[in-house]
Amino acid sequence: MTDAALADLARLLSPDSLILDESVREAYAHDDAEWAEYTTPSAVVRAASIDDVVATVTWAARHGVAIVPRGAGTGLSGGANATSGSLVLTLERMTEVLEVNVEERYARVQAGVLNDALRQEVAASGLWYPPDPASQAISTIGGNVATNAGGICCVKYGVTRDYVLGLTVVLADGSIARLGRTTAKGVTGYDLTALMVGSEGTLGIVVEATLKLLPPGGREERAVVGYFPSLTAAGRAVAAVAAAGIVPAALELIDRMCLHAVAQWQGWDLPEGAAALLLAKVDEAGEAGERLAARLEDAFRDAGGAAVERADDPAEIDRLFRARRLAYPALERLGPVLTEDVCVPRGAVPEMLARIEAIAADADVVIANIAHAGDGNLHPLIIAPEGDEAAKARAKGAFDRIVTACRALGGTVTGEHGVGLLKLPGAAAELSPTVIRLHADIKRALDPQGILNPGKAFPTEGAPA
Amino acid sequence: MTDAALADLARLLSPDSLILDESVREAYAHDDAEWAEYTTPSAVVRAASIDDVVATVTWAARHGVAIVPRGAGTGLSGGANATSGSLVLTLERMTEVLEVNVEERYARVQAGVLNDALRQEVAASGLWYPPDPASQAISTIGGNVATNAGGICCVKYGVTRDYVLGLTVVLADGSIARLGRTTAKGVTGYDLTALMVGSEGTLGIVVEATLKLLPPGGREERAVVGYFPSLTAAGRAVAAVAAAGIVPAALELIDRMCLHAVAQWQGWDLPEGAAALLLAKVDEAGEAGERLAARLEDAFRDAGGAAVERADDPAEIDRLFRARRLAYPALERLGPVLTEDVCVPRGAVPEMLARIEAIAADADVVIANIAHAGDGNLHPLIIAPEGDEAAKARAKGAFDRIVTACRALGGTVTGEHGVGLLKLPGAAAELSPTVIRLHADIKRALDPQGILNPGKAFPTEGAPA
Repeated sequence: MTDAALADLARLLSPDSLILDESVREAYAHDDAEWAEYTTPSAVVRAASIDDVVATVTWAARHGVAIVPRGAGTGLSGGANATSGSLVLTLERMTEVLEVNVEERYARVQAGVLNDALRQEVAASGLWYPPDPASQAISTIGGNVATNAGGICCVKYGVTRDYVLGLTVVLADGSIARLGRTTAKGVTGYDLTALMVGSEGTLGIVVEATLKLLPPGGREERAVVGYFPSLTAAGRAVAAVAAAGIVPAALELIDRMCLHAVAQWQGWDLPEGAAALLLAKVDEAGEAGERLAARLEDAFRDAGGAAVERADDPAEIDRLFRARRLAYPALERLGPVLTEDVCVPRGAVPEMLARIEAIAADADVVIANIAHAGDGNLHPLIIAPEGDEAAKARAKGAFDRIVTACRALGGTVTGEHGVGLLKLPGAAAELSPTVIRLHADIKRALDPQGILNPGKAFPTEGAPA
Repeated sequence: MTDAALADLARLLSPDSLILDESVREAYAHDDAEWAEYTTPSAVVRAASIDDVVATVTWAARHGVAIVPRGAGTGLSGGANATSGSLVLTLERMTEVLEVNVEERYARVQAGVLNDALRQEVAASGLWYPPDPASQAISTIGGNVATNAGGICCVKYGVTRDYVLGLTVVLADGSIARLGRTTAKGVTGYDLTALMVGSEGTLGIVVEATLKLLPPGGREERAVVGYFPSLTAAGRAVAAVAAAGIVPAALELIDRMCLHAVAQWQGWDLPEGAAALLLAKVDEAGEAGERLAARLEDAFRDAGGAAVERADDPAEIDRLFRARRLAYPALERLGPVLTEDVCVPRGAVPEMLARIEAIAADADVVIANIAHAGDGNLHPLIIAPEGDEAAKARAKGAFDRIVTACRALGGTVTGEHGVGLLKLPGAAAELSPTVIRLHADIKRALDPQGILNPGKAFPTEGAPA
C-alpha cells in the first residue's frame, strides 16, 4: 500500500484511528498463537465506529489490501495473525453496550465489549450471559462470535453460537448487513447469523451483536471436586456422570502435570499419587441441587476418587476451582505454550489422554492437560523451553500427532478455538474435498476479491493422501 | 422433460422409484399450504436410498430440471409446492434409524424418519429428542430440518437447529457433503450445518441427520391451565411468568374463537366470559417443580385467571392440554385454514392479538388464534368457507395485514414455518436489499443452475417501497 493510499485512508477515518507507528504495528502482529506464522502488518486501524469499519473495508476493496480483523487478540489458533501486506483492523475501541432489554432478554452490544463487561452489565438487570471462555476477562464479544468461543459452562449451556440472535456485519464491499432478529424465534431466510458465527472474519466483520440472555432462574451453584489415582479412574467418573443422566454446569479435568505445576507455584501439597483432578458444578436449586451434588460425590468416590470435597458457598467453590484457573498461567511459567483444542467423543477421553501421554513420551516433550471433560474437549498444553528450537520442533510434531490421534478416535480437530492458521492441516484432514470446495464457493461468493482475513478458517485443499 | 430423458432417469433409479401416474403426481403437487401457488409436477421420485437422490440430482442438473424436495408434505408455507415443469423428490421412504449412540447421546437417521418414530426409538434407550412440532406424528426429520421446525417445548428447549449436530446433504451437482460432527463441540470450518437447516432444500437435499439427544434428567411434568376474561389479562399472566424468571417447558395460548370451536365440536361447557385459555408446563423435578407450578398458579390468578387447574399426573396433563391438540382440527372443520406464523417480542403478544382482532373485524374474516405465547410466536388461523372466493380474497388481505402489523411491533414474519412461498412478500419487507443479495449470492454459489427448489425460501428482490 502506497503512502498516498494510506493518506487517503487517514482522511476517511475518525481522528487517530490509523496507526503506522512500527512498535504499535508489531504489537498487533499476532494473537495468542505466536507459534503460528505472522508478520508485522503494514498498518493498524483502531476503529471507533461502524463508519470507520465501512471506510476501511471500502478502501481495502479499492486497493486490494487484505484486512485482518481482531478483537482483543486472545485467540489461540492464529486467526488474527497478520499476513504479509495486510492491514489489521481492531474493534477493541467499540465498547458500547447499546441496549439491555430486560423484558425480551437480549443485549445489543458493539463488537469490542469485553465478555466480562457484558456479564456485569446484564447481571445488574438480573440477567445472565452464559458463554464463559477462559479469556472472559480480556476477550471481546466480537472475537467470541468470530471464533464461536466455548468455555466451561457450555457442557450444560452451549457455546457462543447458541446465544447469538443477530449480527451487524460489514461485508467485503463495505455494505452493512443486519442479520437475524430480536424475537425468541425466527426463520426468515437462511441462517446467515449462524454462518457468520465462527467464520473468523473471513466472510464479514462483526461490528454489533444481539445476544440472548437467560433469567437467573434461581441457579444455586454447588461444586464437587476429587483427585484420582489415574486418568482411567477419572474417565470412569466422567462416564458415570454421563450414564446417570446428569448434565453438570461444569466438568473439568486437570492432569498430573498441570496439578504439579500449580502446586509447585503455589506451594500446595497434593494428595499422594494424584494423577488427575476432576472439578464439577451443578446449579439446580434446592433439594434437586443437593441430590445431584450427592450423586456426583458418589460417582467420584465409586470411580476411585480421593479427597472428594463439596462446596455450596461461592467463596468455597471459588477456592475449589482455583487450580483450574491457575493451570494455564502455571504452565506458561515453564515456557511458551502451544495449546491444543481437540474434541473427542466423551467416552474416548481416557483413551485420548493415554495417547497424548504416549505421544509426549515418544516425542520427548512436556504436555500437560486441561480438559472440558464433560464435552470431550481437551486442551493438551505443549511446552517447549524458551529458545530451545529443537524442543519447539518436537512440540510441533507432537501437536500434529495429537490431531491425528483425535481423528482416529472420531474427534474433531478444534472444539472451540477455531481453525485460524494452526489447525489448517487438521481441517484439511477432517473435511472432505467436497466440503472444502463448499467453503471456497461461499467465501468467493461473499468476498470475491479475497480481502477479508484471507488464508484463515478453512484449508484451500485437502490433506495430502 | 422428454420421455427419453425420463426413461433415462428410470434406469438410474432403484425399481419403482420414478412415478409418472397422474393421480400420484397430483397427490404430490403441494404441501399443507394449498393457499399458495402449486402445479402438478411432471414426475415424482420416491427415493429409496442416497443413491437414488444422487442419481436424480445428477440427472436434473444435466437436463436443467427443477427439483422440489419434500418429506411428508406437512409444511404450512408452500416450501414443497411443485412449480411448473418440476420434479418432486420425496424422501419419505428413507425411514431408517441408522444409529442411536447412548453414551455420546446422538442419533443418526435417514431424512424420512418420522419425528415421533425417532422419539420412540430413542426413548427406548432413555434418551429424549425435544423438538415437537404439532405435526410430530406425521412429519419427517428431513422436513423438520429443512424448515427448522419449532414446537411447543422450544420455549425452554430450543428449535430443530439446536439439535442438529451434522447432516449428509446431496448438493446441486450430485456430490455428497458430510457436514458437522458427532462430538459435543466442534468449530472446524464454517457452520454449514446451520446454513442448511431451514434452507428449505434450496442449497442441498438433506438425506441424513445426526441429532443431539438429551438425557431424561429426571424431568417431571406439571401443568397449570387457566381461563382469562380478556387477551390483555392473559398477556399480563405471560409477562408475569417471564418477569418471575420462570422458563416454562410450554406456555400456550388459545383464544376465544378457538375455544368456542373446540367446545362446540366436543360439547364442552366453557367458563362464562372466557376470552383466552393459557396452558403451561414446567418439568423441573420434585420440590423445585412444585414451587414453580405454584408460582404459575399464582401468576395466573393474579392476572385474573379463573378456573385455574393444576395437574401432576400424565393423564391429567394430557386432559388439560386437550384443547390445544384439538384446536387446529376443530377450526379445519369450519373451512380451509390459512395459517399465519408471525413472531413478535414476548411483551407485544397482547397488542398483536388486539391488532389481529381489529384486522379480522375490518376485513370481515374469521381469525382464531393459537400462540406459543412464551415465545411470542402466534398462529392466527384465518378461515374462509369452502368455495367462497370473495372470503378467500379477504382472508389473503388479512394475512398480509397481519404480517405488516407484526413488523410494526418489531416482529419477524415467520417464527417456525419458514418462508416457502406464502412468506416471500413478508420476507421481502423484512430483509434489506443487502441481505437479500447475500441470499442470492450464496444460492448461486451452491446451486448455479438454480435447480434446487427454485423460488422458495427467500425473495429475489425487496418489497416495493
